[in-house]
Amino acid sequence: MHPTIDQDVARIVAAAADAAPVWACTPRAERAVVLRSISARLSTAADDLIPIARHETHLTEARLRSELARTVFQLDLFADTLDDGSYLDVRIDPADPAWPVAPRPDLRRTKVPLGPVVVFAASNFPFAFSVAGGDTASALAAGCSVILKAHPGHPDLSRATAAVVIDALTSTGAPDGVFHLIEGEAAGVEALRDRRVRAGAFTGSIAGGRALFDVAGSRPEPIPFFGELGSVNPVFVTRAADLCGGAEIAADLIGSFTLGAGQFCTKPGVVLVPRYSVLVETLGVLDLPAAAPLLNDRITAGYRVRRSELADHESVRVLRAGPDPLAPTILVTSLDAVRADSTLLEECFGPTVLVVEYDAEDDLLPLARSLAGQLTASVFADEHEPLAPALIDVLSDRAGRLLWRQWPTGVAVTAAQQHGGPYPATTAPASTSVGTAAIDRFIRPVAFQGFPLQLLPSELREAAPEQARRRP
Amino acid sequence: MHPTIDQDVARIVAAAADAAPVWACTPRAERAVVLRSISARLSTAADDLIPIARHETHLTEARLRSELARTVFQLDLFADTLDDGSYLDVRIDPADPAWPVAPRPDLRRTKVPLGPVVVFAASNFPFAFSVAGGDTASALAAGCSVILKAHPGHPDLSRATAAVVIDALTSTGAPDGVFHLIEGEAAGVEALRDRRVRAGAFTGSIAGGRALFDVAGSRPEPIPFFGELGSVNPVFVTRAADLCGGAEIAADLIGSFTLGAGQFCTKPGVVLVPRYSVLVETLGVLDLPAAAPLLNDRITAGYRVRRSELADHESVRVLRAGPDPLAPTILVTSLDAVRADSTLLEECFGPTVLVVEYDAEDDLLPLARSLAGQLTASVFADEHEPLAPALIDVLSDRAGRLLWRQWPTGVAVTAAQQHGGPYPATTAPASTSVGTAAIDRFIRPVAFQGFPLQLLPSELREAAPEQARRRP
Repeated sequence: MHPTIDQDVARIVAAAADAAPVWACTPRAERAVVLRSISARLSTAADDLIPIARHETHLTEARLRSELARTVFQLDLFADTLDDGSYLDVRIDPADPAWPVAPRPDLRRTKVPLGPVVVFAASNFPFAFSVAGGDTASALAAGCSVILKAHPGHPDLSRATAAVVIDALTSTGAPDGVFHLIEGEAAGVEALRDRRVRAGAFTGSIAGGRALFDVAGSRPEPIPFFGELGSVNPVFVTRAADLCGGAEIAADLIGSFTLGAGQFCTKPGVVLVPRYSVLVETLGVLDLPAAAPLLNDRITAGYRVRRSELADHESVRVLRAGPDPLAPTILVTSLDAVRADSTLLEECFGPTVLVVEYDAEDDLLPLARSLAGQLTASVFADEHEPLAPALIDVLSDRAGRLLWRQWPTGVAVTAAQQHGGPYPATTAPASTSVGTAAIDRFIRPVAFQGFPLQLLPSELREAAPEQARRRP
Repeated sequence: MHPTIDQDVARIVAAAADAAPVWACTPRAERAVVLRSISARLSTAADDLIPIARHETHLTEARLRSELARTVFQLDLFADTLDDGSYLDVRIDPADPAWPVAPRPDLRRTKVPLGPVVVFAASNFPFAFSVAGGDTASALAAGCSVILKAHPGHPDLSRATAAVVIDALTSTGAPDGVFHLIEGEAAGVEALRDRRVRAGAFTGSIAGGRALFDVAGSRPEPIPFFGELGSVNPVFVTRAADLCGGAEIAADLIGSFTLGAGQFCTKPGVVLVPRYSVLVETLGVLDLPAAAPLLNDRITAGYRVRRSELADHESVRVLRAGPDPLAPTILVTSLDAVRADSTLLEECFGPTVLVVEYDAEDDLLPLARSLAGQLTASVFADEHEPLAPALIDVLSDRAGRLLWRQWPTGVAVTAAQQHGGPYPATTAPASTSVGTAAIDRFIRPVAFQGFPLQLLPSELREAAPEQARRRP
């Protein structure tokens, strides 16, 4: 790693601040062209980038190719979002002398970019949540300049990807300074503190994310900080679901919690199952994938500590584990134990799952109510049992995405996606970092009152008031 | 004032937390009925409430009747918003096996209420931003329970209004505990710290709002805090506009900065005018309204201190002032002075305006760029002069609402309104506290993946996928 030195951070933020208004004024169609140019160049560079990523992250070639395809798709999807324009939520209220209380002036509302944004890249998605990942794509689409703090887990890949991005920006005539790579924790914090920076975005640990959230919030001028931190993505299996399909659920659970060696924010980390279940019986005998190396030494060390805390807990028994500590691990405890010690429900980042056995289904609702904020919650139940709607109702208060008899890993990039949730899932519960709504993080509304049409942003220049009235 | 004691706050938050899920599940149409019942009962109670308000706030009967009408209208408008339902921004993506990267599951996204909210009432709108004001109306509409911290400036009115609200809630069968009044600063802070509370909303001073923002952000589980703090609402007058209409601008400025004795968040506090202007010449001779009492002793004391700081500043001359310190006051300084001491651009809450004379129009853009975040910014210019679009562009980065040859006081309650802006205008630049979009503060998205229709929230139960596809 080559930490960016202080003077360089100051110079880079100044350049990002200079570029921001130019980029903000660049027509949406042109910003879309730039995003598509980045995606095209990333595709072309795949054979150069994948080997670097393999070397630095230990992820498989297939996984990395799929992730790069996703990264390319995200950029294109945000280009489509720009062409569509509905994300601006344009509202036009023509002047109305008969409006209640007082005559209404002509009011037209659109959204404008926030300004320079610092994006902290993630370790576990070296492409899709890193240099040219979803945060960068959505911030650039929004019209913000981006200062990208590279993740130290894949520095060479970060530099190589940044070179591709900058090449695309230059070749399409995007303003100088609209994208910068910085390295090192201190540089990231310094950039986040700079008064010219208007927002932060982050994907990573609770400790790291909370520290940065506190930096953003304690500035003389606080700024929004969109951190995606931690989640155990609880899975609820009712007795009925276990009886009718426990073996299949067990097999699919193994596939989900070991996917990518368990290094996903959406890994199902805690599974509530009835005592004496087909599910646990099956988990005891099915083949498990082989141990796989984790992303880097720091994550490996952290995983080993956390896994031991859980496995050595007096209320936990080890159902499955290999001689290699990185082998997929299945732990079992009881609902009573979890109620007595809620730290059992804290995240273990890596290939471990904690099965929590309950005796009475009546205990599931109070447990669900007491959960910390989650990215996802899954329910395996019979659609006719009364518990199902009650559980869904409670879980919709605790998670950003609910799944019915499906697994949370594999997050579709689409308009209806919601990848967020109450703290600690995120620091901003109304935000998503996956899907087209991710662009909303980097824009804010501005109303224009009484303006002549030619002085309005183009999307507000509708002459026919009746047609233009977008909302009742 | 009767401060709410600790045990009562804990009991009240518990009741609000119990009521929240019941209220969240109450169909939108029923919540709309409840809101309309509150508004109807407020109208009926006008003759009881207005005298209390007059006594406690010194505002005129005409002003208070208009403000109560606005409060009633706001409640009805949020009822309409509920009936309309488009605020949920429903997105339905049917399953698509050919979706790029990976097959897409059926994903449907709606929004759910955050949970119990603490609302801190404002001093300067005893109806419209107080017990039954816009924050309460939008939070109740969203499906959140509300703990309303009364403003100490109008305790009797707060209690009387709360009784009307609770009466309406009871008579329409709303769940017990969906609305509570608490009193006292300590009680407000305690409620905001309670882990069962999910958001805060506030209208008031920078110091008070920042302290509460810090409380909300430093909780073990931080929550969103929507504070509307301070703004000087700069007005830019070009030489051309002054030549063609300086006298009229001067007359209207007097009307705007003295409206409600200058006690509006949107009072134009700073006006940039060319040196040797018709505007200042006219301001020097026009009649000014008589001195009027301010809302309460605390605001009066604060105003006198701040007004003296400005009037006694070595770079400021007093153009107009009466023997009564509460008489409307017009101060004049120079752009150079403002550049040398930016504290001149801090808010003075009350009937004072600071006119800033400039020599070169070229200096306006850098000044606009350097402004702190504002609720509004107004431009008086000729639509054909090149400065106009450049200024509008810069100001759209610094304010939530831009006005063309109009005054910022009088904030229309409508879909396209934006009453917010970068810090310190607000603590959440993407939010508005006026207009139907105010409801967005109290909801967050939830995606439902793979659910049978009958287990989905009603707004997501569309059977025909093609019709249901709301976004491209």
